[in-house]
Amino acid sequence: MQLLNDLLNIQSVSGDESPMKKFLINLILQRMQSWKVTPFMYTGEEFHDCILLKFGNPRTAVFAHMDTIGFMTRYHDQLIAIGGPESEDGTELVGEDSLGPISCKLKNIDGNLFHDFPRAIERGTNLSFAQNIRIHEGYIQAAYLDNRLGVYNALKVCESLKDGWVVFSTYEEHGGGSMPFLLKFIMENAPIKQALISDITWVTDGVTHGNGVAISIRDKFIPRRSFINKVIELAKNSKVAFQLEVEDAGGSDGREIQFSPYAVDWCFIGAPEDNVHSPNEKVALYDLECMIDLYKYLMTHL
Amino acid sequence: MQLLNDLLNIQSVSGDESPMKKFLINLILQRMQSWKVTPFMYTGEEFHDCILLKFGNPRTAVFAHMDTIGFMTRYHDQLIAIGGPESEDGTELVGEDSLGPISCKLKNIDGNLFHDFPRAIERGTNLSFAQNIRIHEGYIQAAYLDNRLGVYNALKVCESLKDGWVVFSTYEEHGGGSMPFLLKFIMENAPIKQALISDITWVTDGVTHGNGVAISIRDKFIPRRSFINKVIELAKNSKVAFQLEVEDAGGSDGREIQFSPYAVDWCFIGAPEDNVHSPNEKVALYDLECMIDLYKYLMTHL
Amino acid sequence: MQLLNDLLNIQSVSGDESPMKKFLINLILQRMQSWKVTPFMYTGEEFHDCILLKFGNPRTAVFAHMDTIGFMTRYHDQLIAIGGPESEDGTELVGEDSLGPISCKLKNIDGNLFHDFPRAIERGTNLSFAQNIRIHEGYIQAAYLDNRLGVYNALKVCESLKDGWVVFSTYEEHGGGSMPFLLKFIMENAPIKQALISDITWVTDGVTHGNGVAISIRDKFIPRRSFINKVIELAKNSKVAFQLEVEDAGGSDGREIQFSPYAVDWCFIGAPEDNVHSPNEKVALYDLECMIDLYKYLMTHL
Repeated sequence: MQLLNDLLNIQSVSGDESPMKKFLINLILQRMQSWKVTPFMYTGEEFHDCILLKFGNPRTAVFAHMDTIGFMTRYHDQLIAIGGPESEDGTELVGEDSLGPISCKLKNIDGNLFHDFPRAIERGTNLSFAQNIRIHEGYIQAAYLDNRLGVYNALKVCESLKDGWVVFSTYEEHGGGSMPFLLKFIMENAPIKQALISDITWVTDGVTHGNGVAISIRDKFIPRRSFINKVIELAKNSKVAFQLEVEDAGGSDGREIQFSPYAVDWCFIGAPEDNVHSPNEKVALYDLECMIDLYKYLMTHL
Repeated sequence: MQLLNDLLNIQSVSGDESPMKKFLINLILQRMQSWKVTPFMYTGEEFHDCILLKFGNPRTAVFAHMDTIGFMTRYHDQLIAIGGPESEDGTELVGEDSLGPISCKLKNIDGNLFHDFPRAIERGTNLSFAQNIRIHEGYIQAAYLDNRLGVYNALKVCESLKDGWVVFSTYEEHGGGSMPFLLKFIMENAPIKQALISDITWVTDGVTHGNGVAISIRDKFIPRRSFINKVIELAKNSKVAFQLEVEDAGGSDGREIQFSPYAVDWCFIGAPEDNVHSPNEKVALYDLECMIDLYKYLMTHL
Repeated sequence: MQLLNDLLNIQSVSGDESPMKKFLINLILQRMQSWKVTPFMYTGEEFHDCILLKFGNPRTAVFAHMDTIGFMTRYHDQLIAIGGPESEDGTELVGEDSLGPISCKLKNIDGNLFHDFPRAIERGTNLSFAQNIRIHEGYIQAAYLDNRLGVYNALKVCESLKDGWVVFSTYEEHGGGSMPFLLKFIMENAPIKQALISDITWVTDGVTHGNGVAISIRDKFIPRRSFINKVIELAKNSKVAFQLEVEDAGGSDGREIQFSPYAVDWCFIGAPEDNVHSPNEKVALYDLECMIDLYKYLMTHL
């Protein structure tokens, strides 16, 4: 779990994912020689802060977003949200501006957000939840499991992947914007027919802790049914524990595949979490294991 | 009206349009020899559940969406909407899961939707309005006139079309998603400058039954005025009865043309209906005739 | 200021920008010989009502939208909004239909909008704010400073520009739709890495009159931080007065760059105005000067 620990301690708020990009590039360069297949890595300014890995002859891509929700300083100690964070009064926030590191508390006064740092923070500074990782009785609890577990899952898939794309995207928590150019690059270089969204979903009255990874039949958006049926059929064959999710809200990188100019099927598959978008996101380790196992199976059999 | 009757009896909820695709492919293969021009048909997995017909040298495309609104089962007898269906308590719904056919009633309890089927229905099962077609005193009344009449109109246009695309799209009722790849294919193979959206609109205080097909100057979105003026000018020359529509809500496949990376003009033209998105949608047969006549005229003269 | 005066007196509501297009094409043809570099001009039906100017070897593009907010006539003297105009009762509106010129007042009855013109106005007629330009004590006040000042700025940039695109877009006030095809053309002909949005922003508690042009760190959408940092660094070097803006609402042509299939960085830079989207928009002339100076600097140094 050292890798997961490292991932959870990097700041990477939407729009400013360069620290995570740098960490992942280093990690991939160190590890790729030990993977079953050595991928081509595409990165650099022409891909902004994204990373693409191409293994063999891809049929399917795995997308994991690197960014997180957070806050940005405005004027007069005001904060505004990046993505949709929980904004409980007293939450500890951290960041840095040109004057140095910042550690402060969130003040929520009737829905208006402020920080209590003793000095003014430079306009437009990103703040994140202070990290506090707890592993206990089969659960992991921390800030930003969404989507560090999705990134972790994607890296585990890399170890044995023969054919496929593994892609680390940006901006997902705040409306997206990297998926369109990532898809264009993929489709013009080694096109795919299908995509899996490696991300974290919600515990609900139908999807619970410890019952396996969730396969989403729909969220706010509806993927093509014939592909979902194929994924469910394979999941049954895999013997990995899974739960079927049906929601009418929420979105993911899958949204941008749905609306892209490419006929690519997509399916969101991820472990469910409690306390979504808070510093106390909670996931059952068993569900994370199932997620990794199902991805490995699907990337071989799809 | 046998064709229209057949179209109205096929289930084709957004995301699961394959039954309608199969029906239309069979129909087109049977009929295309009797059409004035035999089109090329593009279909298959690379087009998901869509169908494109290319006649001669296209300048204009007709788009008709194949999908309908409906409901999806969630957990504990809950239903969630697909698109924006009317949800009146007691409405009859039909569908099928792996255990067999389903016929049940919609229960609307303070806006929360349930079904009353005696057994649990599998998660993620699509349900549609039970069909009840009534033709009486110049009106047709049924579920899903939106957009089976638009599909019917497109098929009638095929009979005498010399040059143009006729395209059957998917997902329209639930945010879209097939138009971008359909447009890309069209623009890279036989590009167009203009598009007509063959769909059904609303009876309002300015657009009424029996006064002809509606030409929409705008809905939530605003097409380019110079093209709308050209369409209106031609409509006047055609001697077909039409009404001008001006709305600030509602959308269609035209939205995705507006936001596509192609400079393609678009205009929504369709008969108006009452009881929108309910099992009792109602259209004047005269307005449907006008719709067909105007499309035939425009596809020749645009 | 004659040029600015002329720009402010042309009607160009979203969807009907052809009058502004014609004016600009004439103006550009007259002036381009006196510019430091003579650009290629791309215009005509394949670009709808947009205009693109290519100077030298572009690295960066300036986008200025030509359209404005306004109103459209519906049925029975009703009006509906185009974009998000202020709708104060009694506001003077002007327009024209086939029966002749129109001058009337806006009636706002509990949020429902009407006109008081003595005769019926043809359905779908565009109405704009009556223009009233006031220059006084260092301020300009008028309707449609947003975005005639952005267009004016772009034209001033043309005078000395060596390398870059200057692009006049349409539909921006009503959801957009020209940016995708403009970007496609640019990227396929003389691609760019970065874009500046020449548009007008809001006076707020952090951005005030007379303190220089605003550089937006974010609005509803969040551009990539590493690019914003680069722009701010250059702005400091330029010695031009500027203010940093941080908002969580509002959008611009930048939104469509963010969601385009091209990895192009963008930044909104514009003078702030008071009385937004009303007939009395107000901008400090000093801030407009700073805007022009900063654009000239950035287009050289980016």
